[in-house]
Amino acid sequence: MTIESKLKELGIALPTAPKPVANYVPAVRAGELLFTSGVLPMKEGKPAFEGKLGKELTVELGQEAARLAVLNALSIVKQELGSLDKVARIVRLTGHVASAPGFTQQPAVLNGASDLLVAIFGEAGRHTRAALGAAELPLGSPIELELIVQIRP
Amino acid sequence: MTIESKLKELGIALPTAPKPVANYVPAVRAGELLFTSGVLPMKEGKPAFEGKLGKELTVELGQEAARLAVLNALSIVKQELGSLDKVARIVRLTGHVASAPGFTQQPAVLNGASDLLVAIFGEAGRHTRAALGAAELPLGSPIELELIVQIRP
Amino acid sequence: MTIESKLKELGIALPTAPKPVANYVPAVRAGELLFTSGVLPMKEGKPAFEGKLGKELTVELGQEAARLAVLNALSIVKQELGSLDKVARIVRLTGHVASAPGFTQQPAVLNGASDLLVAIFGEAGRHTRAALGAAELPLGSPIELELIVQIRP
Repeated sequence: MTIESKLKELGIALPTAPKPVANYVPAVRAGELLFTSGVLPMKEGKPAFEGKLGKELTVELGQEAARLAVLNALSIVKQELGSLDKVARIVRLTGHVASAPGFTQQPAVLNGASDLLVAIFGEAGRHTRAALGAAELPLGSPIELELIVQIRP
Repeated sequence: MTIESKLKELGIALPTAPKPVANYVPAVRAGELLFTSGVLPMKEGKPAFEGKLGKELTVELGQEAARLAVLNALSIVKQELGSLDKVARIVRLTGHVASAPGFTQQPAVLNGASDLLVAIFGEAGRHTRAALGAAELPLGSPIELELIVQIRP
Repeated sequence: MTIESKLKELGIALPTAPKPVANYVPAVRAGELLFTSGVLPMKEGKPAFEGKLGKELTVELGQEAARLAVLNALSIVKQELGSLDKVARIVRLTGHVASAPGFTQQPAVLNGASDLLVAIFGEAGRHTRAALGAAELPLGSPIELELIVQIRP
């Protein structure tokens, strides 16, 4: 099964790939690795969530934000590679969660992104992960994700 | 001398490799690089330290936590590669230190991990490092470490 | 045009490459990738800026700090490779901005570094970027940058 048909089966439509608003690019390929820029939970060019976990946002809303952010990242990957079937492995998900003092459930929030990667890519979606609590994130976003992807030869 | 005998000489027993508690994996290999997930200072499946530097923990306790976390990371590397003798180089140590306002001695804390890497691997243990102050870390951990390792061909 | 003559044209003199003050190294090469350690805005061996964005420092001062930090990083790259002409691509800029509560303009601050990379390297300087708000950084620095560079074969 192709990844595109898997996405259909899951009822997922990828958002438009976000455009960087400064002198950087969405993704760079170096050898067999593709690095994405830090990606926010954007919807139609605007951040769809605002606030910190442990204050303005519940864990459930944080998970939704993580899901949306990882779909934005995948849409960058597709734009770069032409097709998500070129992904050999999701190597790395770094997840920054804007955290109010005392909020320590970053892993639960990021499961929103991790579970989706595995649902879409199966074994190839099983990634390493770092779950981190940021003091602040751009535009007041609750989530910023970075992906490193291994590309099929 | 093998790394195993070096560990014995230093009186170090590696802890059991921590198991991820969600849809991610402890390590992924991509070409000659091995990436580990973010690793906490775990002992027998439980976090052995809690609290922030500059508040609940002294620099000395933070160094102990950094040492324990890096041993957890090495035990993941051993589990993935079969033997620590397959390590060509420790490329990268990213160290996140949960920091109370005004705490700026992240480098001193991370020396606990850096010094141990060099004691164990010699020149091959001399790594690049980023020392960062996190707002919060999972489970209230004072330390989270990530490793990138180059594997012998 | 060589990168050295481009630097002259831009009126830029690279600072002395900062020396790590502990058991780590400024850069490690693994295959075609060069990783730098986290780099602060140092001038003649001392941090040239102190404080947080959104409190002690304006965005403009933060941009100056970002420019100085990225020049320190490039001076490490030059020291490792012999010449900046060996840079095939700036793959990745990770930018940590020490952020007081409510400061969310990390991207604007990091443009100081991103714009300079593109001014110096042209297309090869167009990188992926993550803009992050740190709770605290070493020595009270407002900025810490990490680079991943692809090296010409």
